[in-house]
Amino acid sequence: MNIWSWFGGKRDEECILPINSSLSVTLHQDQLKTTTTVACSRSFQEDRIWLNGKEEDINQPRLQSCLREIRRLARKRRSDGEGGVDLAGLSHKVHICSVNNFPTAAGLASSAAGYACLVYTLARVMGVEGELSAVARQGSGSACRSMYGGFVQWIMGQREDGKDSVAQQVEPETHWPELRILVLVVSAERKPVGSTSGMQTSVETSSLLKHRSDSVVPARMKEMIDAVHRKDFAAFAELTMKDSNQFHAICLDTYPPIFYLNDVSRHIINLVHHYNQHYREARVAYTFDAGPNAVIYTLQQHVDEFLQVVKHFFPPETNGGQFVKGLPVASTTLTEELRQAIGMEPMVKGISYIISTKAGPGPCIVEEPSQHLLGSDGLPKESA
Amino acid sequence: MNIWSWFGGKRDEECILPINSSLSVTLHQDQLKTTTTVACSRSFQEDRIWLNGKEEDINQPRLQSCLREIRRLARKRRSDGEGGVDLAGLSHKVHICSVNNFPTAAGLASSAAGYACLVYTLARVMGVEGELSAVARQGSGSACRSMYGGFVQWIMGQREDGKDSVAQQVEPETHWPELRILVLVVSAERKPVGSTSGMQTSVETSSLLKHRSDSVVPARMKEMIDAVHRKDFAAFAELTMKDSNQFHAICLDTYPPIFYLNDVSRHIINLVHHYNQHYREARVAYTFDAGPNAVIYTLQQHVDEFLQVVKHFFPPETNGGQFVKGLPVASTTLTEELRQAIGMEPMVKGISYIISTKAGPGPCIVEEPSQHLLGSDGLPKESA
Repeated sequence: MNIWSWFGGKRDEECILPINSSLSVTLHQDQLKTTTTVACSRSFQEDRIWLNGKEEDINQPRLQSCLREIRRLARKRRSDGEGGVDLAGLSHKVHICSVNNFPTAAGLASSAAGYACLVYTLARVMGVEGELSAVARQGSGSACRSMYGGFVQWIMGQREDGKDSVAQQVEPETHWPELRILVLVVSAERKPVGSTSGMQTSVETSSLLKHRSDSVVPARMKEMIDAVHRKDFAAFAELTMKDSNQFHAICLDTYPPIFYLNDVSRHIINLVHHYNQHYREARVAYTFDAGPNAVIYTLQQHVDEFLQVVKHFFPPETNGGQFVKGLPVASTTLTEELRQAIGMEPMVKGISYIISTKAGPGPCIVEEPSQHLLGSDGLPKESA
Repeated sequence: MNIWSWFGGKRDEECILPINSSLSVTLHQDQLKTTTTVACSRSFQEDRIWLNGKEEDINQPRLQSCLREIRRLARKRRSDGEGGVDLAGLSHKVHICSVNNFPTAAGLASSAAGYACLVYTLARVMGVEGELSAVARQGSGSACRSMYGGFVQWIMGQREDGKDSVAQQVEPETHWPELRILVLVVSAERKPVGSTSGMQTSVETSSLLKHRSDSVVPARMKEMIDAVHRKDFAAFAELTMKDSNQFHAICLDTYPPIFYLNDVSRHIINLVHHYNQHYREARVAYTFDAGPNAVIYTLQQHVDEFLQVVKHFFPPETNGGQFVKGLPVASTTLTEELRQAIGMEPMVKGISYIISTKAGPGPCIVEEPSQHLLGSDGLPKESA
């Protein structure tokens, strides 16, 4: 996330309308992805869902909201005489199967990817087209941005019913190919406070949050969008770091306070600032979602060196798996000068692994049947 | 500190005028104290100062401000024909010797106690009487509050020259004898960011701080003073915790961000909230100054049990010194119910020791010559 928002407040009791606009970059599916298969059949007795190999309760209110809304749009389309799909399927039950290739609930926005993917897939199966971010929003607020690739803003909107609270692409993922993203996975443990309840408590108790939403964010959104258009990394970096810090500041100003950053996160923050100070320019930026993992932005020409710096100051376990996964990085030698300029104590095993990635597209269709997660019997394949 | 302030900003470039009023409790000297001896003699060649056994640079600007101001007041007094002291001493050089019985620069406000004690002692030696908090303020902002005992507010004032920015006692230390204070010493390491430079950076870069000073603090000060007058522990506790959290939130909203809390501090915060939630009332409160150590407030009837809780969840090193120093506490048994209600993983060695204390008086005179820190030769005694 680059510009943060909270949900809830006066306009909305169900925590799906934001109190300010926000902006994020969609990560590439080659590295971080949710895959969802939806099947519908007259033989299915009831709606069912499997997440990461385990059947979950289909009656979760947010899941039901998405299902209801897509079915309503499908019926509307049929009564309008549109669409060329199997319309009989509308009365059928659905089986949904979804897997992430990254840890869930560890602050890596798994619910955003999950609901975006679900809504996109349901819509395809039921022959619904058009703007779907408002539907995804009802599953998980930030899922609406994940309906698009590249740089995406979520415009808060003004209407009480939230119909104008939708996502909009600022620039596609091809706009800034030099931009690289590193996810430093600090801990795969579940975060202590689910982000929805935390958000509601912040809206209710932080005496700084309203000032942020009303008076700080509008200007920041403009500056951020402008920095993205101009591909101005220094401006993009500073705004991203400041907004991440302010998000966590508001969490701390919540009562009781909410902590997502831990000592490793703070070490990463200091490392980034020391690195930038050494070069007298912002070459690297961090942002932290609702968890201790860092998302690092940098440019192609700096990624190899910065990764070497991270490896030096967060030495990986020697007998573990691959430390850097995803897009390849080249090995470089760290100069003694840079090491000394950063001047921190190395923190062994602070980072468990790194995902090397970049901006990516929105939801895509998986054509290859062997990749589908449900078998011909409508049940998860063994591998799912 | 119970209500925080930052220094600097438009009214003041030297960082000794606050941007809002503030409130603190003076800790008892039986447990946390600075002792200062000042000698003046025609035989001294120059002003000199020894802090905790080591000679320091007397030319530090803040030290010079205090010396200059006390000498100016002494001369004024002489020209006004007041005072009955050795006025010849005014032209003499001074030797200053000062020791703390607690770790310096670990976020335990050693500079506040130090400058309060220095100004008080200099004033006595030079025959200056009257309101001295404005002088102490020029040494270390928060030192002005330490010129009084008990519950003390620092009224920010309005004048450009700061002459109306003085401390005032809200209630003496005898007002609330049931109030107990525990200092949980997390680390005696020096803090990474000196609080003065950090404060100036916050004033310059935090987009939330001005809102806090202008719109949040004035009401909090009123509520806090009212809670002290009424001895309303629940209100005092909640305000204290909220303001500590907001102080650290602003530090995080500073760019680059400033961190004083570490993982141990956060564990203590969670412990306090779990403990209070179990009893459905605020029995304990925390506040953190510019460092990871917690200052805990509670009432006499809860102190034994809460200390037992702390010992359970932060098991001390077995072969160290005394874990709880200062005012005696009784051993109690922790119920299994309470342990489970708190439900946290114990953190071994997270807290190195605890100082058990209470509210105390302002600066006092040490009459006993054997306690004085300078010998008859004007140099520190071996023990100092």
